[in-house]
Amino acid sequence: MNVNGRPMRTIWLAENERTVEIIDQRRLPHELVLARLATLDDAAAAIRDMAVRGAPLIGATAAYGMALAMAGDPSDAGIAHAVDVLGKTRPTAVNLHWALEAVRRILAPLAPRRRHDAALTRAAEIAEEDVAINRALGAHGVKPIVEAQRRKGGGRVDILTHCNAGWLATVDWGTALAPIYRAHDDGIALHVWVDETRPRNQGASLTAWELGQHGVPHTVIADNAGGYLMRQGMVDLVITGTDRTAANGDVANKIGTYLKALAAYDNDVPFYVALPSPTIDWTLADGDGIPIEQRDPREVTHIAGWAESGERTEVRLTPAGSAAGNYAFDVTPARLVTGLVTERGICAASRDGLLGLFPERRNRGAA
Amino acid sequence: MNVNGRPMRTIWLAENERTVEIIDQRRLPHELVLARLATLDDAAAAIRDMAVRGAPLIGATAAYGMALAMAGDPSDAGIAHAVDVLGKTRPTAVNLHWALEAVRRILAPLAPRRRHDAALTRAAEIAEEDVAINRALGAHGVKPIVEAQRRKGGGRVDILTHCNAGWLATVDWGTALAPIYRAHDDGIALHVWVDETRPRNQGASLTAWELGQHGVPHTVIADNAGGYLMRQGMVDLVITGTDRTAANGDVANKIGTYLKALAAYDNDVPFYVALPSPTIDWTLADGDGIPIEQRDPREVTHIAGWAESGERTEVRLTPAGSAAGNYAFDVTPARLVTGLVTERGICAASRDGLLGLFPERRNRGAA
Repeated sequence: MNVNGRPMRTIWLAENERTVEIIDQRRLPHELVLARLATLDDAAAAIRDMAVRGAPLIGATAAYGMALAMAGDPSDAGIAHAVDVLGKTRPTAVNLHWALEAVRRILAPLAPRRRHDAALTRAAEIAEEDVAINRALGAHGVKPIVEAQRRKGGGRVDILTHCNAGWLATVDWGTALAPIYRAHDDGIALHVWVDETRPRNQGASLTAWELGQHGVPHTVIADNAGGYLMRQGMVDLVITGTDRTAANGDVANKIGTYLKALAAYDNDVPFYVALPSPTIDWTLADGDGIPIEQRDPREVTHIAGWAESGERTEVRLTPAGSAAGNYAFDVTPARLVTGLVTERGICAASRDGLLGLFPERRNRGAA
Repeated sequence: MNVNGRPMRTIWLAENERTVEIIDQRRLPHELVLARLATLDDAAAAIRDMAVRGAPLIGATAAYGMALAMAGDPSDAGIAHAVDVLGKTRPTAVNLHWALEAVRRILAPLAPRRRHDAALTRAAEIAEEDVAINRALGAHGVKPIVEAQRRKGGGRVDILTHCNAGWLATVDWGTALAPIYRAHDDGIALHVWVDETRPRNQGASLTAWELGQHGVPHTVIADNAGGYLMRQGMVDLVITGTDRTAANGDVANKIGTYLKALAAYDNDVPFYVALPSPTIDWTLADGDGIPIEQRDPREVTHIAGWAESGERTEVRLTPAGSAAGNYAFDVTPARLVTGLVTERGICAASRDGLLGLFPERRNRGAA
């Protein structure tokens, strides 16, 4: 999507075709800083220290990290070492391990001198596959936006989103934001209510930044405000992403998504969830089995922002003696979800709905 | 309630019986700073600059401000001037104007030399009336807590609250927190989930501080977390305050209250609202007529906290080009409210429920 009026991705091969460039997302939204990854260790640090984040982007960075490793040590031991180093950066990221395995499978049978080029090619493919999936999410997900505009008899469509499921979490387009970018680029008048998404504020920082750079009108709101806006008829549609979808259509996503789904249901506002199909966990019969991460309470007791001096500053919000809880995700039951937007089309949030789009899963049986 | 193990109020007459002392709430939760009000202008500044806040406390401070004014100029012109100066401090605060009128009514027929003492007496009465009402809210509101404990077969009762409806918003006890203090003082094991309550964070700062000082176990959470906690069975009861209650039981309260009420309803968690009866607006047939204040977007784009240096520091959270919306209240429909806790007892959130407790309103007719 656009930054300063020019198309940009979150990761790309530099012109020298030997190093990789990324946006260092830790400086957003206040500074656009690019970083160059020249070695295996550079790539591992970028993932570990969250210069890049978002499952699809972590996968692409890991794949490029394998290529950078092959430029240094293309031996069998070099492959094993790279998989080990990169695999330890974010232990719970599924895409990370998938990407490492995909590159290793290509490299293993090749002569060492051919491995660097082959890894670069496979990494570029993995990045392009992500872009293609997200572009398809956008093409399908634009339909409910067009429908919302038709339902209100034309005019601006107001869309609420939670957290950051934008191009910054992927290689390009994003998941929940892909339909929004597509609709905007197609000339549909729209405006996005951006939940700030405490405690990590990915909405207020990342989503607001990317929408602003691409020229999409938007307004940042406290997470508390969405219910009021829906009751006032100021939201035509909700679109969020998901970290994991169970086989029955229950969706785990950033904490607070469930509250917005309840408000959407109570006010007859369509609630869509956009997801690349690898996010579907066919082994989970429903969302009850999805483990919910508890993160450092410091993300609740403290917050970082930019002081007037321009310096990134962390401040304490709570009394020193008060405990804090930091539950990172919640599960929205399928009954509250209007539809799931996948790269193959939109379906009902149900087992039958998902199997209709992914019939090859029908005979595999879920847990 | 207790501070550092000793009972304290938000406002009291100093031992010299000529000045008034308050907690300067702008320094909480990081510092307990007391301030002395010696003149009319001191009192007006304390209200205007939000050293004191919360409708009942604003009323009590205004009443004491009248007394301080009478020490300086007890003439008829002095009364008019004091009412004018204090009345302009927070134009929308209903209790403020009620308290000024109550004191003026006492003073008008008196000889100037008797006005200072009379105003002091009336101000003290107004403060005591507030304490009595809140103590009654506590006595009635403890019942659903006892009931929740019985229902779960004993053990700790987990209560969720939103914003600050504690003793810091009143003279003592608070409204939503009064039942919690009463239950805690009665020896009932309980724990409070404190919504941080963006954008002004009154939960994370004021509610957490008061509960901590009084020794009530509590955990601060992001506003997004309550739905998850309720789905996990980790909340036995929700209690909030309200800024205005319509005659049908619809309640306006801090933005985000409606989302918690939806989650409580979806998970069969009792949802109670505690209110002193002056909060009931008998002229409003339902909550649709309650005007919702839009506040400065800066409360969303920026946040203040304490830097490591100990200095209060404001930081920017959003990109410079992004707009922000700051809707301060929402309306929770009566259908989601289990009961209203008033100083006369608990009733259903309905016209019949309210009229059952306040039969004198039956023949007055609401709009």
